[in-house]
Amino acid sequence: MQDIRIKELFRNTNEYADKEITVRGWIRTNRGSNKFGFVELNDGSFFKSLQVVYEADKIDNFQEISKAPIASALKVRGTLVLTPEAKQPFELKAEEVEIEAGSDSDYPLQKKRHSLEYLREIAHLRPRSNTFSAVFRVRSLVAYAIHKFFQENGFVYVHTPIITGSDAEGAGEMFRVTTLDPANPPMADGQVDYSQDFFGKETNLTVSGQLEAEIFAMAFRDVYTFGPTFRAENSNTARHASEFWMIEPEMAFCDLEGNMQTAEAMIKYIIRYVMENAPEEMEFFNNFIDKGLIDRLTNIVESDFVRITYTEAVELLKKADKEFDYPVEWGIDLQTEHERYITEEVFKKPVFVTDYPKDIKAFYMRLNEDGKTVAACDLLVPGIGEIIGGSQREERLDVLKARMDEMGLEEKDYWWYLELRKYGGVKHSGYGLGFERMIMYVTGMSNIRDVLPFPRTPKTAEF
Amino acid sequence: MQDIRIKELFRNTNEYADKEITVRGWIRTNRGSNKFGFVELNDGSFFKSLQVVYEADKIDNFQEISKAPIASALKVRGTLVLTPEAKQPFELKAEEVEIEAGSDSDYPLQKKRHSLEYLREIAHLRPRSNTFSAVFRVRSLVAYAIHKFFQENGFVYVHTPIITGSDAEGAGEMFRVTTLDPANPPMADGQVDYSQDFFGKETNLTVSGQLEAEIFAMAFRDVYTFGPTFRAENSNTARHASEFWMIEPEMAFCDLEGNMQTAEAMIKYIIRYVMENAPEEMEFFNNFIDKGLIDRLTNIVESDFVRITYTEAVELLKKADKEFDYPVEWGIDLQTEHERYITEEVFKKPVFVTDYPKDIKAFYMRLNEDGKTVAACDLLVPGIGEIIGGSQREERLDVLKARMDEMGLEEKDYWWYLELRKYGGVKHSGYGLGFERMIMYVTGMSNIRDVLPFPRTPKTAEF
Repeated sequence: MQDIRIKELFRNTNEYADKEITVRGWIRTNRGSNKFGFVELNDGSFFKSLQVVYEADKIDNFQEISKAPIASALKVRGTLVLTPEAKQPFELKAEEVEIEAGSDSDYPLQKKRHSLEYLREIAHLRPRSNTFSAVFRVRSLVAYAIHKFFQENGFVYVHTPIITGSDAEGAGEMFRVTTLDPANPPMADGQVDYSQDFFGKETNLTVSGQLEAEIFAMAFRDVYTFGPTFRAENSNTARHASEFWMIEPEMAFCDLEGNMQTAEAMIKYIIRYVMENAPEEMEFFNNFIDKGLIDRLTNIVESDFVRITYTEAVELLKKADKEFDYPVEWGIDLQTEHERYITEEVFKKPVFVTDYPKDIKAFYMRLNEDGKTVAACDLLVPGIGEIIGGSQREERLDVLKARMDEMGLEEKDYWWYLELRKYGGVKHSGYGLGFERMIMYVTGMSNIRDVLPFPRTPKTAEF
Repeated sequence: MQDIRIKELFRNTNEYADKEITVRGWIRTNRGSNKFGFVELNDGSFFKSLQVVYEADKIDNFQEISKAPIASALKVRGTLVLTPEAKQPFELKAEEVEIEAGSDSDYPLQKKRHSLEYLREIAHLRPRSNTFSAVFRVRSLVAYAIHKFFQENGFVYVHTPIITGSDAEGAGEMFRVTTLDPANPPMADGQVDYSQDFFGKETNLTVSGQLEAEIFAMAFRDVYTFGPTFRAENSNTARHASEFWMIEPEMAFCDLEGNMQTAEAMIKYIIRYVMENAPEEMEFFNNFIDKGLIDRLTNIVESDFVRITYTEAVELLKKADKEFDYPVEWGIDLQTEHERYITEEVFKKPVFVTDYPKDIKAFYMRLNEDGKTVAACDLLVPGIGEIIGGSQREERLDVLKARMDEMGLEEKDYWWYLELRKYGGVKHSGYGLGFERMIMYVTGMSNIRDVLPFPRTPKTAEF
């Protein structure tokens, strides 16, 4: 008999009531007397477990089953019985129980609660815990919601390169990718001779796919990337990882306002999708990880995001009845404390801050009429701070060249990026969403290490 | 007025007939007389272009528009007129035309045909050509079809790590990832001291996410990866790239037959999805890239895939009325010529070859009863050869340890992989699909460099 996923039993209960079915799964708990026993069986298809009742009178191997340790895998044939008066909505009355795989009794995930720090050390087992079962199922749903949102809106998904030979990204410290003999690299003129390396030049792991995404926007109009990006920064914070995933939409014929509209629609779409498709997980997060999470997310879906300029934000911060660690004046880069004050205390909802001073932003952002600010837009959200950074891109070849010159960037390193402006280089905009920040936002988890399946951080690359 | 995507005009023509609309896009061709002109306008939303007719009597800037070079971007307001008697189904009669961005006349993509080799050198412009517009739109659709297939079947998407500190993958030559000073690496005992490297140990780019996917299958039952993988192999063939994307589903409680059923259903789902959602692109490939493509794909969707054992395959090859470059005997690894003979000449459809000799397969594949073969399954398809490699995994701890010992692998390097077998390590299976091979298969493109947006191959990492 084909076995049935436990999710299916929870979602379409009436179809299976009083019917004989077969399920497979792993034991989460196993308790009972010498006459009958209860197993919480989880098959990974669903956050909740199925209660299995087995009786000494009914099955031959009652002794064996009652001793089966946590994490053992069972195949159970039985009848699904509705139990409207009990805590769980139904249970499976076993007629036959078979152990498909045993488990050692030193299984580390016993019923007691474990710290998140401890669970990180057993990343090969933590997806079986309630918290991580919920986190990684939601992670999968958020990833799919993002694809769904963009595909349904006609965006083309582009895989920008992971290994880059371009010096042009400049968004942070990079990891070098090489096959040269590490102890004896070939040298020329006192320098490592990268012409002998695998790609014939020095290569690194990408920090952003934006510049290549712009290539595709000039061909397909609306495109997005979704891939891993890397930062070789030695920062051990709860919000930074060395390897993380980013989504970078890029839209031709689109100005800053259009950019913000897409970002706002995307954020709301993701939240709605997760609340509809993972209500059990969201309830769990709301109860055990971050009380108030569901209210906060509902509020975000229903409210219009605020839009203020950087200059207005600085005014608000200066007027604030609050001491900041970093003093505020026009021209500074906003710190997390400033961002959170604006989004959490002033507006209590997501806020786009636009038109930042050009000197604190990247060369490719479009210079505003005032000559001092650029058409950037960062989205700040309560509980996180910045979750999206975006801008309208500088499409005017002469202005772009002047800015590159100002910043000491060499034209020859950007030859193809400049050519995009020569041949039908229309106005265009885009933004980057840090995927893990979005997962933290949606789940309430406060450490990026707990939303990455196998986090990479300074001195850590286990599993 | 909100502009309308050209795809929308082609898909819902009747809604726009005789209405005034605004479109934006890039000029593909521009020709005419001194009274009127025709522009093929492409906005990237659709494979086909919109014919725009502009007349000297109607628009003020007729001279300017008639001189606008290819690749210039226009905004056009006009009325959509059905033209059932003409080659194109409708045209836009312009009332107002505005140049949004000009283009230099040295634009390399003029109307004449260019070689695929030349187009690779201008990877920043080739997505605007017919061929690559079709290839990369189909690439995006195939990616989405894969997510859709797995998500609709309850699989959890897992991001396995890109940077790996594990020596356990062993599927090929790896790229080293490092931040050490390349000219003066720290040394200890005559060796590079990786304890001083960013992650405190030697790290490489992943060649497969399978082992980590197994972790997730033991928690979520049905999971899949979809991410970049890397091979530092110096092989300059039309089928190999140094950076490519892979899909690796992994299913608990699943044997080899279940594995093949999923693979077959997935392949058919992808093909159906692309044929339904990109009929214009598929017609283009069928006419200009690979005649017979649509028939071949239709045949695959409608036929049952063959299943034969390796031993049967060897018999077929020995009986073949054909000289092979590599002689056939039981125990050899099948070469592409053998694979293509079986799938193209013997069966003329996709063939799963199962139960390979253990000595030519990986340590994690489940040993069969005969002690000589393992429960592997490779899928061979006409025109490509191997497109999927999979297996049931060895879930028996003692058998796994014995095989590792036989192959000289150290248990300590696989501690967590072995622990999966200690705690509810049920039977499970999975496979890997090379994403680019699938794109080649669906489009008929014969070089992997032409299905990757920015290919990385030995000595090449441009853009």
